[in-house]
Amino acid sequence: MEEISVFCPATIANISCGFDVLGVALESVGDEMVLRKTNTSGIKISRITGQDLPLETEKNVAGVAAQAFLQKADFKGGFEIEIHKKIKPGSGIGSSAASSAGAVWGMNELLGRPFSNLELVEFAMQGEKLASDVPHADNVAPALFGGFALVRSYEPLDVISIPSPSMLYATIIHPQIEVKTSDSRKILRHTVQLKTAIKQWGNLGGLVAGLFKEDYDLIQRSLHDHIVEPIRSILIPEFDELKVESLNTGALGVGISGSGPSVFALSKGEETAKKVAKQMEEVYAGVGVDFDIHVSGINLDGCKKI
Amino acid sequence: MEEISVFCPATIANISCGFDVLGVALESVGDEMVLRKTNTSGIKISRITGQDLPLETEKNVAGVAAQAFLQKADFKGGFEIEIHKKIKPGSGIGSSAASSAGAVWGMNELLGRPFSNLELVEFAMQGEKLASDVPHADNVAPALFGGFALVRSYEPLDVISIPSPSMLYATIIHPQIEVKTSDSRKILRHTVQLKTAIKQWGNLGGLVAGLFKEDYDLIQRSLHDHIVEPIRSILIPEFDELKVESLNTGALGVGISGSGPSVFALSKGEETAKKVAKQMEEVYAGVGVDFDIHVSGINLDGCKKI
Repeated sequence: MEEISVFCPATIANISCGFDVLGVALESVGDEMVLRKTNTSGIKISRITGQDLPLETEKNVAGVAAQAFLQKADFKGGFEIEIHKKIKPGSGIGSSAASSAGAVWGMNELLGRPFSNLELVEFAMQGEKLASDVPHADNVAPALFGGFALVRSYEPLDVISIPSPSMLYATIIHPQIEVKTSDSRKILRHTVQLKTAIKQWGNLGGLVAGLFKEDYDLIQRSLHDHIVEPIRSILIPEFDELKVESLNTGALGVGISGSGPSVFALSKGEETAKKVAKQMEEVYAGVGVDFDIHVSGINLDGCKKI
Repeated sequence: MEEISVFCPATIANISCGFDVLGVALESVGDEMVLRKTNTSGIKISRITGQDLPLETEKNVAGVAAQAFLQKADFKGGFEIEIHKKIKPGSGIGSSAASSAGAVWGMNELLGRPFSNLELVEFAMQGEKLASDVPHADNVAPALFGGFALVRSYEPLDVISIPSPSMLYATIIHPQIEVKTSDSRKILRHTVQLKTAIKQWGNLGGLVAGLFKEDYDLIQRSLHDHIVEPIRSILIPEFDELKVESLNTGALGVGISGSGPSVFALSKGEETAKKVAKQMEEVYAGVGVDFDIHVSGINLDGCKKI
């Protein structure tokens, strides 16, 4: 295979009680990329559509991830990359992660899969490092593994696939305001109350169990974030209203996607997810901030050939 | 049924990363109790063997739990309780929880099961409150539900059964020194670093996933406690040595049982668990502290009729 077209899923990281460790891939929101083998060595980004992003390899997240891959690959040639952005940068649904993951996934396919998914996560994390100074994995891991991915540990990197109940749907509203990942990290406190941390890990244990058991009630009871959401939500216009109204409409839980500003809801069934979308739209109608809303099933495969 | 004899399992609470939320019931270590319906109302503790414990209902954990049960039960009569202690009080393997859980479980059987397991946990917690001032549930919940039990939340109380892989065995060493639960609570810090808390909930997510997947490697990678163990282990003679040697012998993980002083190891297979027991014995041979060692499978049923 000399060329591959790739769908690179958007992802929700920081799923409530799973702050910094749990992300999920989306089925119907994502970027597209084309990767081509070249005879000349190195990475060349030949085309970007949909967004104004740098073509220089070392300034582009996909380029940096691709270089990390190429350094470890037993391959004398290079790759040409086209990026067709559908996910808006800064949306909080893993825009940079999709490009980083898509690049290394596509290259791995073209070379006959020399690397494991876990190794691909390590390469893609280099792109994340460029995007936010921190080489976090909770977007690139679900983008590559699909479904829910738990980043149990960074040293060594350990990613665990968690099953996704079949009726789970996500609704995401992206208020088009800028919240920089670095800013939203800065406002976090470095310490937390032990009793609050215990609540959080009780809920994460419950959420993981709920996903395994396909127990939507348990998922609902567990989708809380007592630590980060109370602080970061102040950066998001009408967060409380979005949350209350979405829960009243039947969402299982509502939280901040990644470091924001997008807000996600998880629901049982597409119909409820669509009602939640409509409700979010109503909440934002009078706010005076532009926004997008997506409804999506869970992507179970991660990046895939199109 | 007018009378029932009950096996009340010992339990390990605070399973490493599951501090305050995750406990497990043991198959071959536990108390025995006999419960009898009486025509006179109220609870009478008629006999206690194996330990010198108060017969007065309101001073005995089983008595207090039984009274909490009786207050809510639609029953005009009362109960007589015999307690045959095999678990040493203060051992850190749920001695008080076994008595509290056994009392309410047996009474519930005698009355035709008017209460759910979750309601029984609430009654038994009153016994725990007498024992340690804090009405914690992470011993009584596994004692009643069997297997691994996650206390996701206290308000409202929410207990989740987590599957137990069939080859999991526990080794427990009980150094016969006194560590009061209240003291071992006092030395804990009230705040923790956010980054440490994140590690802990990543590991708890991994442990729950490992138990569902029967993935012993994942269980092993997840059995860490970065928050409580480093502090509490200073109260336990030779804790580090016990841990290192048990891990070298093949244990999946080692931690403090409850608030100590008992130390538990989880292993894959009874043979390894027995080797770990032998190794623990060697470590303690020269310490000059009396100790007991138990090897046990996981109890999947909780309290049961004998």
